Amino acid sequence: MWTLHTYYRSQASFRVRIALNYKGIARNDVFLHLEKGDQYAPAYKALNPQMVVPTLEDGPIRLTQSLAILEYLEETHPDPPLLPKDPLARAWTRAFALINVADSHPLNVPRIRHYMTDRLKLDAAQMNGWIHHWLGLGLEAMEALLAGHKESGKFCHGDAPSFADIGLVTQVTPSRTFKLALGPYPRVTRIYDACMTLPAFADAQPARQPDAE
Amino acid sequence: MWTLHTYYRSQASFRVRIALNYKGIARNDVFLHLEKGDQYAPAYKALNPQMVVPTLEDGPIRLTQSLAILEYLEETHPDPPLLPKDPLARAWTRAFALINVADSHPLNVPRIRHYMTDRLKLDAAQMNGWIHHWLGLGLEAMEALLAGHKESGKFCHGDAPSFADIGLVTQVTPSRTFKLALGPYPRVTRIYDACMTLPAFADAQPARQPDAE
Repeated sequence: MWTLHTYYRSQASFRVRIALNYKGIARNDVFLHLEKGDQYAPAYKALNPQMVVPTLEDGPIRLTQSLAILEYLEETHPDPPLLPKDPLARAWTRAFALINVADSHPLNVPRIRHYMTDRLKLDAAQMNGWIHHWLGLGLEAMEALLAGHKESGKFCHGDAPSFADIGLVTQVTPSRTFKLALGPYPRVTRIYDACMTLPAFADAQPARQPDAE
Repeated sequence: MWTLHTYYRSQASFRVRIALNYKGIARNDVFLHLEKGDQYAPAYKALNPQMVVPTLEDGPIRLTQSLAILEYLEETHPDPPLLPKDPLARAWTRAFALINVADSHPLNVPRIRHYMTDRLKLDAAQMNGWIHHWLGLGLEAMEALLAGHKESGKFCHGDAPSFADIGLVTQVTPSRTFKLALGPYPRVTRIYDACMTLPAFADAQPARQPDAE
């Protein structure tokens, strides 16, 4: 049985929860509180030298980095798929997800916010401006990509969810938390709503986790 | 024939140049100067709505996001491979690369540095401190992962290069540019040197590109 080291608000943990749910893979959760610094405990650092969540563990197996975990689950549990079959479609789907995974989310995680407030002494307005700026740029790119993607359907690519939809959901969720107006992104918000009709996505939401505050 | 929209200093472009070289895939280069804002031209935005490099183009095909491009090249040109065969080894390799691709590199790109100097009015010491902090954390995690990985050999995983080595190289190269001391990371620097004995890696270096300044 897998153990997921997770934090309810972590968007990276959220991605992995969605994929595990969607593929029907059982797990136990171990909760870390990132704002209290649980990730810096020596025992966790031994498990994940980067001291970030999630870590997916089973005996000696330790998987880290949400996108690498998604690829692993796709390779070992291909049904139901979270990637299309065609290589070009797979590339589009992965690139869409990476707008969130690489270029938006890492700019807004707790360790960044702490550095900015504690070391750079930014005030709340500067911090909020930073978060809105980078989340907004990612949403703009996602909206434009969806507008130009003929194969976009109920979900980002076609009528089944993929890595792209997981990245879309973990872009929209913090945007709502930080009160970024989503009006300019109608395609993004329509697909977010479609995702949330699926129990795999809805049950993985931060607010529904046992460690939610 | 592929066209690569690239900038010599872009670490994301560097990753794709390595993979194209390693797999023997020919390309033409189109050079954008990110510091002069070429990426914001409407014609380029139409090609890449995120306005970042690289974009790999062939007729109607547009591939973006370096890691998605690497996966596409691996699927369509599997020989020589840049991923091991075993799913757990593939996951380790991808997770290692993502320390650079997701959690270090996006914090130090030109658009971030411009935001920090132009909008947050950070001075040179603050900017340098920020860059060193995040590059250093990534290098620490890489060094610890290599120390704990029994299958590490001449390269990060075994004796052939993989996505992990590409991520290692694009972590070390900006660290050198920004004069971060690499003494604490002997495994990382040994593998960097091994990579640079390979023409595919060495020829892809920023300093060897036609647009290098």
